[in-house]
Formats: sequence, structure tokens, C-alpha cells
Amino acid sequence: MFNKISIIGCGLIGSSILRSVEEKKLAVKISVHDKSNQVMEYLKKNFSVDTCSNVSEATKDADLIIISAPLSSYKEILLSIKSSLKEGSILTDTGSAKKEVNKIVINLGLKNISWIASHPIAGTEYSGPAAGSSSLFKNRWCILSADNQIAKNKLENLKKFWSKLGSKVKIMSFEDHDYVLSLTSHLPHAVAYSIVRTAINNEDKFKNDVIEYSAGGLRDFTRIASSDPLMWKDIFIDNSENILKVLDNYSKNLDQIKNAIKNKDSKKLLEIFSSTKKVRKEIIEAGQDTEEPGFGRK
Amino acid sequence: MFNKISIIGCGLIGSSILRSVEEKKLAVKISVHDKSNQVMEYLKKNFSVDTCSNVSEATKDADLIIISAPLSSYKEILLSIKSSLKEGSILTDTGSAKKEVNKIVINLGLKNISWIASHPIAGTEYSGPAAGSSSLFKNRWCILSADNQIAKNKLENLKKFWSKLGSKVKIMSFEDHDYVLSLTSHLPHAVAYSIVRTAINNEDKFKNDVIEYSAGGLRDFTRIASSDPLMWKDIFIDNSENILKVLDNYSKNLDQIKNAIKNKDSKKLLEIFSSTKKVRKEIIEAGQDTEEPGFGRK
Repeated sequence: MFNKISIIGCGLIGSSILRSVEEKKLAVKISVHDKSNQVMEYLKKNFSVDTCSNVSEATKDADLIIISAPLSSYKEILLSIKSSLKEGSILTDTGSAKKEVNKIVINLGLKNISWIASHPIAGTEYSGPAAGSSSLFKNRWCILSADNQIAKNKLENLKKFWSKLGSKVKIMSFEDHDYVLSLTSHLPHAVAYSIVRTAINNEDKFKNDVIEYSAGGLRDFTRIASSDPLMWKDIFIDNSENILKVLDNYSKNLDQIKNAIKNKDSKKLLEIFSSTKKVRKEIIEAGQDTEEPGFGRK
Repeated sequence: MFNKISIIGCGLIGSSILRSVEEKKLAVKISVHDKSNQVMEYLKKNFSVDTCSNVSEATKDADLIIISAPLSSYKEILLSIKSSLKEGSILTDTGSAKKEVNKIVINLGLKNISWIASHPIAGTEYSGPAAGSSSLFKNRWCILSADNQIAKNKLENLKKFWSKLGSKVKIMSFEDHDYVLSLTSHLPHAVAYSIVRTAINNEDKFKNDVIEYSAGGLRDFTRIASSDPLMWKDIFIDNSENILKVLDNYSKNLDQIKNAIKNKDSKKLLEIFSSTKKVRKEIIEAGQDTEEPGFGRK
């Protein structure tokens, strides 16, 4: 499909792309770079691809460049690779926030490079290349964002690429992406981090009880709250405007519950708790979760 | 083990007890009652037990009476069965809050009845008798609470009963139970209901997008937010004091994140997000969740 694909950053997502590209033979040549020596050693040991300690070396002659590194590292990466990018190539990424990154790319003034942002809505609570899997993107959405003047054939190429990895592809503006993801992903992470910090107070004599009896609900939240801290602090800073807005709405919703509890208002509580029941059903019908009780976990 | 067991309320939990008691032959006779005609029809059709439309009839001569109904129905049930309870019998329940219920039982002034509260930390997001399973309690904790003067042999009998259902049993005071569960279960439910209400605004043009891209985190919360509304409004009213207290602590933790986002304080965000990572590991080590990525869901 591509002569050369270059993957910059090979953690959970980058290494999953690498595995899938190899498995499905989507490139003649693959080059990879990661700024961590440990990751580079892992890649050398486990893959027969071109591992480049120099990032601009990795992207040289590539037809598709995929940045799969924390958002805060984009600027440095882009400045390093800018002059060695091949004309006509597609530049993409896998980041969870788009608006700020898009500004950085636009400011670079790249010539004859098609910048199309990608966001595969896939992942697990684990990080690092050993956690990757070639089936990570199967049946998962991948959202693409690009300027209107982007060449249609380049957009089609990238859509096909993600489809080959098993993804269903949607196009969304940079702005809409960041708003929708602030609701579906960033708010849940903020909430999960807060709740785990509230429940687990290391000084509290009940700490062990809280761990033991976490199956009453808390355990579900600890999965998300164990996501990669480095990645997440970048997302919160990049998409701060949307996140602060939805956090305010969230606090208002929580205050409704607080007030209903204070007033022992059964009717209001019942109304609130009933309103959310059908959302689960809609998510299952949309193929976005299992209907097995308790996620089908053993 | 018991001559006669009576189960009052046969939804997810009650019917799971019924299935397990039958399967393991823990009683010579079993009688059941549910105030819903639909549930009674289901029980008649699927079980060969004594289905009593009259609750005091169901509990007559029972050696173990298990109330597995919403907390707000306890008072009426207890007043109805009070005079027909057998001397020397054990009265228990399966409720998620204990302090208020204990007051109700004490006020009844039962004579020669051993009141020992039970709380099996087990369940799913589904409700009703068809959702029950005989293995629901396997390897799950069950917390017992009783006054200090309770007869040791009665406590032992009830411990054995839950052990036979597959549970691991712990004893905890009514007060400690309600505090610990406010952290592990009631707070997570309040938060889940709030977040789903925030993310899904039926008037919002992005509603369908939010459903489609819920795999970024939101879908996890919709499971808990689809729990039985009737049961949960009772829990929030019964355990209001603890829940309001932990909700205040939670809001403080959330404000820390909000302020760090406002100030684009990478260091603080990294510190917050790093602090919760190891809790997941502790919960997995305690056997309270799977280490499979994404709960191992398909």
C-alpha cells in the first residue's frame, strides 16, 4: 500500500500499528523511532524493521509518517523532521486532542505534505510496546481531521490504511473532534482520577477495606485511572478549554444529585437515575460495548 | 443446613440466592415472596419452591429469613412478618446500606430473633430474577454486621451459609460498613450517573457522536449508570450522611485537577495522574478485578 511507512513513537498505539502493518504487509519498508532507549531495544529484539535512533533518518523517504508520541513532544519531532519530509507524503498522528496540534503543524508551513490528523479510539489501560496488539484497531473507530483543501486522494489513502488495520473511519473537524472527545474520553478520565484519589487515602485506616470491597463500583474506575499519566497530562493541557467547560457542566449535574440527597428527594433521585439507563443500551446497540454483565469479566 | 429458608424479594440478588440454595441443597424447604406479580409468575414458572403471595406466610416457620428487597420496603416487610417470625430464627438482608436499617430493626424490639445484616458485594448492571445466577457470589465478599451480643453460633451459621454460596465473609460494624461502601460503591454510582447525564444531552447535535465514540472511556461509566434506579435512590437516602461527606472530598479532588488545567500546570497534573496508577495493581492483587486489558471484554 505504501512504499515506506515511518512510525515515530512506539508505545501501545505505535507498536500496535507496527504489528498490524507488518502482519498485513501494508508497506515495503517500515522505519521506527522512539526516544526511549528501552523501547528501541525492545523493537530491535522483537521486530525486523529499520530502527533509527535519529528521528529525521526514520522519516526520510517515507510516504506515510505516523506520529504516535505524547502531544507535548510533537513540536520537537516536527521541527526535527520538517526538512527531511518527502514531497507528496502523508503526515498523520494518533493523538487524542487535535486543535493545538493542528496550529503547530500549520505554523510549520510544510510544502506539499498532506497533514491529516488521525485518532484511533482504541487502547487499553496498559502502555509501552509490549502491551501492543495487531488487533487493537479492529472494529474500533478512527477519526480523521483535515483542512478542506486537502487532496481527496490523500484522504482516501489514509482512510484505506486505517480500514486495513480493521478500523471504521469517520471525518470530523479538528474543533468538533476535541469537543466530542472531551465528553467521551477526557471528562471520564478527569473523573476517574478524582474518584480514585478520593477513595484511596493512604493514611486512612480503611484503605485495605476500600481495595477489598472495590467490586461495588470503584474497581471499574481504577482501570481508566491507571492510564499513562504522561500522555494524559498533555491531553488535559491541549484540550483545556473544552475540558474545563464540560467539567463545569458535570459539576452542575453532580450538584443536582447532592441537593436531592440533602433534601432526601426520592422523586428527583429516581428521575436522575432513570435518565441514564437507556444510554447503556444505545452504546451496546452501536457496537461500542459488550452486553455481557460486568463487561463479561471473569 | 437450614430446615426452611425464606427469601423476601426475588430480583437479581434474591433469585441468585434462590438458585444457589437450590443447587447446593442448603434447605429442606424454600419459600419466596415478591411484591411484583410479574416476578411471582416468573418464580412459579422457573422454580419448584413455595411461592407465597402473603409475606408473613412466606416467613412462617423459617429458620433463615433473607430480605432482598429495596431498602425503602424494609419497614413494611418487617412490620408484616414481625409477629410470625419463629423463635430462634436468623433474620438477615442483602442491602447496600446498614445503619438506618439497623435502627428500624432495633425499634421493632424482636424477641429471640438473631438480626445479622448481610451485604454480598456482588451484582451486575442488570436487575430482575431472570438476570440472577447461582454463581453470582462465588469468590465475592459478603460483609456481615451485628450487635456485639449476638449469639456466636448464629453468626457462625450465617457465615457458613454465605461460604456455601461461594462468598468470602468479613464482619464489620454497621457504621464502618456504611462509610467504606460510600467510598467503594455509592460515590462511584453518584459520579457515574452525573457523568452520563453530562455527556449525553439529548438536545445536543453531537449526541450520536458521543454514543459512537464512547470507547474512549465513557462506556465504562454507563454500565454502573444503568443500575436499578429504585434500589439506588434508597441507598442514597439511607446513607446520605456518608455520601455527602465523600462527595465533598471528591469535589475537592476534582477542583485540584480543574485548577491544574487552568494553570496549565504539567507537574501537578502528572503528580495527580501518577498517584492513582498503583491502586489498580493493588485491586488486581487482591483478586478484585481481572488484569486482562479492558476487563477482557470482546
